Amino acid sequence: MQFQIRILGSSSALPTSTRMPTAQVVMYNETPYLIDCAEGTQMQMRKFSIPFGKLKNIFISHLHGDHFYGIFGLLSSFNLLGRKQDLNIYAPEELKIIYETVLSLNKDHLKYTVNFFPLKGNGKNLIFENKYLEVYSFPLKHTKPTYGFLFIEKMKPLNIRKDIIERYELSITEILKIKAGEDLIDDFGDIIKNSELTTKPGDIRSYAFCTDTLPLKQLDKYFKNVNLLYHEATFTEDMVELAKETHHSTAKQAAEIANITEAKKLLIGHFSSRYHFSDIFIQEAEEIFQDVIAAEDGMLINL
Amino acid sequence: MQFQIRILGSSSALPTSTRMPTAQVVMYNETPYLIDCAEGTQMQMRKFSIPFGKLKNIFISHLHGDHFYGIFGLLSSFNLLGRKQDLNIYAPEELKIIYETVLSLNKDHLKYTVNFFPLKGNGKNLIFENKYLEVYSFPLKHTKPTYGFLFIEKMKPLNIRKDIIERYELSITEILKIKAGEDLIDDFGDIIKNSELTTKPGDIRSYAFCTDTLPLKQLDKYFKNVNLLYHEATFTEDMVELAKETHHSTAKQAAEIANITEAKKLLIGHFSSRYHFSDIFIQEAEEIFQDVIAAEDGMLINL
Repeated sequence: MQFQIRILGSSSALPTSTRMPTAQVVMYNETPYLIDCAEGTQMQMRKFSIPFGKLKNIFISHLHGDHFYGIFGLLSSFNLLGRKQDLNIYAPEELKIIYETVLSLNKDHLKYTVNFFPLKGNGKNLIFENKYLEVYSFPLKHTKPTYGFLFIEKMKPLNIRKDIIERYELSITEILKIKAGEDLIDDFGDIIKNSELTTKPGDIRSYAFCTDTLPLKQLDKYFKNVNLLYHEATFTEDMVELAKETHHSTAKQAAEIANITEAKKLLIGHFSSRYHFSDIFIQEAEEIFQDVIAAEDGMLINL
Repeated sequence: MQFQIRILGSSSALPTSTRMPTAQVVMYNETPYLIDCAEGTQMQMRKFSIPFGKLKNIFISHLHGDHFYGIFGLLSSFNLLGRKQDLNIYAPEELKIIYETVLSLNKDHLKYTVNFFPLKGNGKNLIFENKYLEVYSFPLKHTKPTYGFLFIEKMKPLNIRKDIIERYELSITEILKIKAGEDLIDDFGDIIKNSELTTKPGDIRSYAFCTDTLPLKQLDKYFKNVNLLYHEATFTEDMVELAKETHHSTAKQAAEIANITEAKKLLIGHFSSRYHFSDIFIQEAEEIFQDVIAAEDGMLINL
């Protein structure tokens, strides 16, 4: 089953000529889940071919502009595109008042329903689940209420056997159904069990998203051993005092969190615009943790 | 004196892969004046090297999202960049409440002053002037209160004589001062009159900006003979009924307004995302009016 992270924006508050502010898409089984929605997110979604019509769930970490100023344009565009289906937004509660106030100016109200789920609580909370995924929120520590998100797949990932595809001349739809655990009914009406169609299942995969925040050692209470940890690294260690003051993290601190939570891979981003290259972040983090990548706009990571 | 129009966005409400929603910059004497501020405007300003620090005046035509959703990010970025000087915004009055509500979420309030000038009235009003320019607003007819803008230079454009630059080894600052009408004091303290430094002045130049609107024949009460008329052309003539219903114009209607107001050149834009090429708009408008150009993102027009 497809489980990918697409980076739409990797800068901190100030966009640069190569980095937009924060937005990411989790693609799972052809379905996008949007995390944060900075200014320009709808343009980035178009650029990287994220299907607008399939987006049903938006998760907003906190209400600083560089994480949500794109929500107004996105909601408006959905309206113009004739959206009918519901949209779910999971965000700190003030966001509802804000987008309703801004959108009410346009008078032509949204023609679809927005279900708003305020983020709350001090612990780990299940905020969304469907057949395939569970999403949890957990508290981070920033200058205002901020939440991290944990995406965990429910089923062990199945890979279809190549010879099966050829033998039964399977369509994409059939392949996806088999990868999702279904059996196959052949032309004679016989049932072929899923276990005969797929190879031995892999381990359950997971993704944790942590921005904006001070480094929190207790994150291992909320997740451990994720396949990919996104942790902000706004600064390098020589600016650790500024990081502390502004409630952000350094690359070194992000790597320490990856160690503590025993992540398999670390993705860092939310780089301050004062840095022109990401190498310095990678170098610093790699001294502490082995497998580090620096987010770049447009990057696609397979889990 | 430099008098240029830079197109930052040329689509209507829905951005496309090649067109951002409406924003333009009038550059006069190295100073930018921003007209409309759709989502992504700060990114476009960066892309096309518009100096953030020199922007002091923002004109917003009306409060549909595709003309102002970029204001929140722009105001925030100015704050992050340490702006100290005042910013003037000329817009329909509800905008003030909206941006104050949105920005108050960030709690770290703007560290500079925004002077807000609500657009009002049914006629032509002088809303801004400095040594070089006058800007007027005038009413358009759309689904909500909408204003057009007229930029007129105060002084006839002066061109400095090339031999003068060489003879006195003039700096850029000195050249700009002479172009702005000042005399020169040479190394011996003698005054050389401006008329001896410059060629015969040209005619006063002007720019009219009209979007979003139905075609209004009475626009010739507000301006005539402008060097450049920007008039929206959301649709082509086969969609004239939809244009009427949505209070927009067709390319043909934009050309008719250019004729009525005796514009020297017509610039059309705000194209609906259903059209993939602008040729059809140009063809339609050229049947009515001779000198037509279609706005493209990044385009720079010298007046």
